[in-house]
Amino acid sequence: MNHLHNLINAIEPIHQEVAVQANDHLNQLTKPQGSLGKLEDIARQVAGITGEVMPTFEKKAVIVMAGDHGVCEEGISAFPAAVTPQMVLNFLYGGAAVNVLARHAGADVVCVDMGVNADLEHPNLVSRKVRKGTRNMAKEAALTLEETTQAIVAGSEIVDDLVAKGYRLFATGEMGIGNTTASAAILCALTGLDTSIAVGRGTGIDDATWLHKQSVVNTALGVNGLLGRGASASTSASTSTSASAKASAEEGSSGDYALEVLSKVGGLEIAGLVGVILGAAKHRCPVVVDGFISSTAALVASRLAPLSASYMLASHLSQEQGHAKVLESIGLAAMLQMDMRLGEGTGAVLVFNLIDAAGKIMKEMATFESAGVSRE
Amino acid sequence: MNHLHNLINAIEPIHQEVAVQANDHLNQLTKPQGSLGKLEDIARQVAGITGEVMPTFEKKAVIVMAGDHGVCEEGISAFPAAVTPQMVLNFLYGGAAVNVLARHAGADVVCVDMGVNADLEHPNLVSRKVRKGTRNMAKEAALTLEETTQAIVAGSEIVDDLVAKGYRLFATGEMGIGNTTASAAILCALTGLDTSIAVGRGTGIDDATWLHKQSVVNTALGVNGLLGRGASASTSASTSTSASAKASAEEGSSGDYALEVLSKVGGLEIAGLVGVILGAAKHRCPVVVDGFISSTAALVASRLAPLSASYMLASHLSQEQGHAKVLESIGLAAMLQMDMRLGEGTGAVLVFNLIDAAGKIMKEMATFESAGVSRE
Repeated sequence: MNHLHNLINAIEPIHQEVAVQANDHLNQLTKPQGSLGKLEDIARQVAGITGEVMPTFEKKAVIVMAGDHGVCEEGISAFPAAVTPQMVLNFLYGGAAVNVLARHAGADVVCVDMGVNADLEHPNLVSRKVRKGTRNMAKEAALTLEETTQAIVAGSEIVDDLVAKGYRLFATGEMGIGNTTASAAILCALTGLDTSIAVGRGTGIDDATWLHKQSVVNTALGVNGLLGRGASASTSASTSTSASAKASAEEGSSGDYALEVLSKVGGLEIAGLVGVILGAAKHRCPVVVDGFISSTAALVASRLAPLSASYMLASHLSQEQGHAKVLESIGLAAMLQMDMRLGEGTGAVLVFNLIDAAGKIMKEMATFESAGVSRE
Repeated sequence: MNHLHNLINAIEPIHQEVAVQANDHLNQLTKPQGSLGKLEDIARQVAGITGEVMPTFEKKAVIVMAGDHGVCEEGISAFPAAVTPQMVLNFLYGGAAVNVLARHAGADVVCVDMGVNADLEHPNLVSRKVRKGTRNMAKEAALTLEETTQAIVAGSEIVDDLVAKGYRLFATGEMGIGNTTASAAILCALTGLDTSIAVGRGTGIDDATWLHKQSVVNTALGVNGLLGRGASASTSASTSTSASAKASAEEGSSGDYALEVLSKVGGLEIAGLVGVILGAAKHRCPVVVDGFISSTAALVASRLAPLSASYMLASHLSQEQGHAKVLESIGLAAMLQMDMRLGEGTGAVLVFNLIDAAGKIMKEMATFESAGVSRE
């Protein structure tokens, strides 16, 4: 717990004055003010995060964390749990969608075993296995608080290692059959949202399985004593201003509840991603958040450390129906509307190209003065 | 008129059977079916367009057409008309946003003077000037039918030239102070939409100018006899099935009206882009449509030649408020939600990266069989 406490306390506000300098530069460029929309938002945000008006991100990584879910024994997924280790091998051999899209973006895939229910070995696999899959949250707590904290700290240490190797831009990705069920449970527990809104179709289930999945989430919330606690608990974080944010995180009431939720109905890859996000924030690196599961991890991170939200960039709006609600709860806006629902970090790595584009806008566009264009 | 008739008749349906082959391949790849959403739509569509299951687009161009608008004398823009030629020079010197984003996408900017109200010369400027700006549509028809047809044919000939040089992927862009006013008028005339919905803030005008801009559009529609004709005229095109589409275009009732609207309240850069889109469709090349003005050109193209719509890809949903309505009228869905409102082709060139990504998904992803991943 002490490691986690130190991690949270190491996160500082972004450099607002550098974001303002970036904005001043944007307003000199030959375009109506603000007309490049979110490209300008990106430029301001990464300036504030890094403390450089025009940062360059040479080494980028998408951290894909894998874990299995005990709740799969309730029959909530279209795919068998055996697919988790099979897909981890696919990531390691470079054949999955995230590998293709990461290569396209000039980024590296870092594949982490946080809790796959199989013995996996590969020279490129980062093994931080906490246990072989979570317990079945429909019957008991998925994880202990110690296991959860261990997974979060492991995620942040992976970022420590990558920063030491020169990586400065991160994206989150995940693989874990059953993890949309865990994410929906986290979302319900943290926000008080009804399961009919939070629970989606995952990799593609039929109506009957969808209704069953909702009932499994409700059971898990009941078994773990999380029913009816979300809405009130969420208020303290969502109303906290950035000035009071750090204090509120240190008080920890909202953070304690988020940690409890993450352990009772979460997953090891989700907890690992919470650590990745907190670690990126600690190192003043932007972190691009992928779809529903990654965004649920981001929501937990923002409850544990409200200041971490300023280091996050949303990527795409997934087809998973709870995703819009998660982004809204954190205060993030998606840039891509691709109807994707694959996870792995596939939506997040597509945004690396937009971050590069925003950087070039800052560095390469002519100013009104240099181009001799009238301002009004 | 004969040139235009031939151009329209040269457009054929896309190769559905090749799109189906692309889909079959997508369903072998290690991901739940359809889970890459619009990336899969792109892969299927470009396969159907080109007739190749996995086409590669080595040479790409964004065609940026410029023209001035007589209606500017009504005071409807935040910027003076002098900015049109100034920005054309900025494009030619490589300092505008579209230059930066096109370089980022590995695409070339082709800058065309369709009707700038200034004498412009530069070795890289393609001059197809029909006249120095349109007439003031609030007082008379902006263009004659002959001028309009000349501009459309010029646009298609530019695509002919680029295809001869090996370009196979296009994006539309434009520059013309006053052209959101012309586009709003076209949208109202073609769809019957109210000016309060179709007219937006352009490059950034205040409330009073916005109301004035609406009244100018209403005046232009009245002066040119276009009030109350849109809704009925639009029905024939929107209800035409793809089987009857070609016949309906040949009958030309909807097409004749679209041409009349384009000449009375359109612009030379808009007409030029209609020609670019029709030309791309004729050559079986995908054409990525930028924001509000480009999409209005695409709407006109889809009325002149309904089959051309299958060759279009929408890019971003602009902040210009009529844009969603234009895309809906054509049946296109935007991929980027960046709150951009600059034009120039800036949103469209960002989509080149997504088209490249979709191509790599087709070529580089492992299949269930090759990776040993269970299907269910």
